[in-house]
Amino acid sequence: MTTATWPAGAAYIDGRYMPIAEATIPITEWGYRRSDVTYDVVGVWGGAFFRLDDHIARFRRSMQALRMAPAESDQDIRRVLGECVRRSGLKEAYVSMECLRGAPKPGLPRHPVNCRNYLVAFAIPCIWVFSPEVQARGAHLVVAKTPRIAEDSVDPKVKNFHWGDLTRGLFQAHDQGADNCVLLDRDGNVTEGPGFNVFSVTGGAVATSDRGALEGITRLSVKELCQELGIPFALRKLPVAELREADEIFTATTAGGIMPASRLDGRVLGNDRPGPISARLRETFWAKRAQGWHATPIAYD
Amino acid sequence: MTTATWPAGAAYIDGRYMPIAEATIPITEWGYRRSDVTYDVVGVWGGAFFRLDDHIARFRRSMQALRMAPAESDQDIRRVLGECVRRSGLKEAYVSMECLRGAPKPGLPRHPVNCRNYLVAFAIPCIWVFSPEVQARGAHLVVAKTPRIAEDSVDPKVKNFHWGDLTRGLFQAHDQGADNCVLLDRDGNVTEGPGFNVFSVTGGAVATSDRGALEGITRLSVKELCQELGIPFALRKLPVAELREADEIFTATTAGGIMPASRLDGRVLGNDRPGPISARLRETFWAKRAQGWHATPIAYD
Repeated sequence: MTTATWPAGAAYIDGRYMPIAEATIPITEWGYRRSDVTYDVVGVWGGAFFRLDDHIARFRRSMQALRMAPAESDQDIRRVLGECVRRSGLKEAYVSMECLRGAPKPGLPRHPVNCRNYLVAFAIPCIWVFSPEVQARGAHLVVAKTPRIAEDSVDPKVKNFHWGDLTRGLFQAHDQGADNCVLLDRDGNVTEGPGFNVFSVTGGAVATSDRGALEGITRLSVKELCQELGIPFALRKLPVAELREADEIFTATTAGGIMPASRLDGRVLGNDRPGPISARLRETFWAKRAQGWHATPIAYD
Repeated sequence: MTTATWPAGAAYIDGRYMPIAEATIPITEWGYRRSDVTYDVVGVWGGAFFRLDDHIARFRRSMQALRMAPAESDQDIRRVLGECVRRSGLKEAYVSMECLRGAPKPGLPRHPVNCRNYLVAFAIPCIWVFSPEVQARGAHLVVAKTPRIAEDSVDPKVKNFHWGDLTRGLFQAHDQGADNCVLLDRDGNVTEGPGFNVFSVTGGAVATSDRGALEGITRLSVKELCQELGIPFALRKLPVAELREADEIFTATTAGGIMPASRLDGRVLGNDRPGPISARLRETFWAKRAQGWHATPIAYD
């Protein structure tokens, strides 16, 4: 096919493709005005999606939880995402799928049941939560004073844009000269950071929070890598005191993979560099991806 | 002046005016992607703003709390809002002012400090939280099972689009055949509903929640009306048990003024119609507005 490519990014909104610079939503849209939207992000690396079906399945569960149903089936979404990447021509990309509530139809009560939900998707060049430089030295994190929005108010397993608490945490990190933050629940347990899961390594064992956090797909990859490498892995309550005393800390997200930290609230972990288990997981993660692990190649034609 | 009018609504985005149908924001904008935005809404009735300076002052406080600073001064915002209404030609309007975080500048760390904040404003025909029919019979409310997002996670006094909890409450109301919902905090105290403050009337005295809720400007008007009419008014903790046993319940918002309820969780209040004190406050509110109370006339020319 001879479609023009859009290297800055390609988007799809409700049936139509366009360059990312033209991809906009109305200011009257409830996806914006009420943050009534769910989304998911899948990575493309070396011209292939990573765990595409896992992301689409989680996205569908999120939509169902919010009682949203766009016109597109899972198979349609698969095709739309591939087409966005194809039109961008990008071999490495950040690919988002989003379902917006819409706006209430004229003449009907202003209630979410009276909105037509629709799909937005786009592929843009990779986004890294931590720059390559920060990844090399290890991220400097702080424990935010702002507690994470509680699960019974907004479910963190339904991926959402309710980032007010995370944004406050980011400002706290900035004020303390750090790169990023980790938020706790009201009982002092680790939840997650802005867009990533958080892991501790203590005595050679990896642990990550089972509450207040997204069920990360990169987190699932970490679990699989630990099983393969014979590293104990636990999904459980992670008190902040345990994180503070950890030998190593790392984060995981689609937007960057496995990324080690080297400081927490100014406390230096190990030798102020990514720890050995974190580094080993990260290296194995990228080595396996280079070998086509969980990959779905894209037809660029 | 001879500008074409846009009766469906007029908008302003970062220096430029346009019809509301053309008013869009990029899907890469953090005001959408992180709900990193604050807003305020002022009403226009009979060709005049109601409490314009109060709304602009609250909007400025909200922006400061989020460390946002658009290019426009308060005086500029005043002018922009007037111009949106003038270009719409509307004598009754819902007028929103919004400050969006923006997107991080290329090459800089992806942090909110590296974004250029900007102003969005628009005037559209009035929005009523409750239709005239529902207002006449009194709204049917339910107490939502979903607790309001806690104040220490996202401050409800900084008007925001974190509506996930409110949307869940709206679905619960819908499932129970009711019009709308009231959310509680974790201690069982009333906070607010989706876009409105909630009031109880017991033994002739009005009370409304001092926590977990927006510091409503219509709420302030209710307080002033109570003082004028000699009705006791209290801003304090309002346990849900007290709301359930109230003689009357009413709500207040820019998008509709003072609006009585007639049922809570199926329990009929009084004679299943707006109660006498609620009705008196509502009538006085509109009578005073017709007389130019807190009004700033708009120059339509």
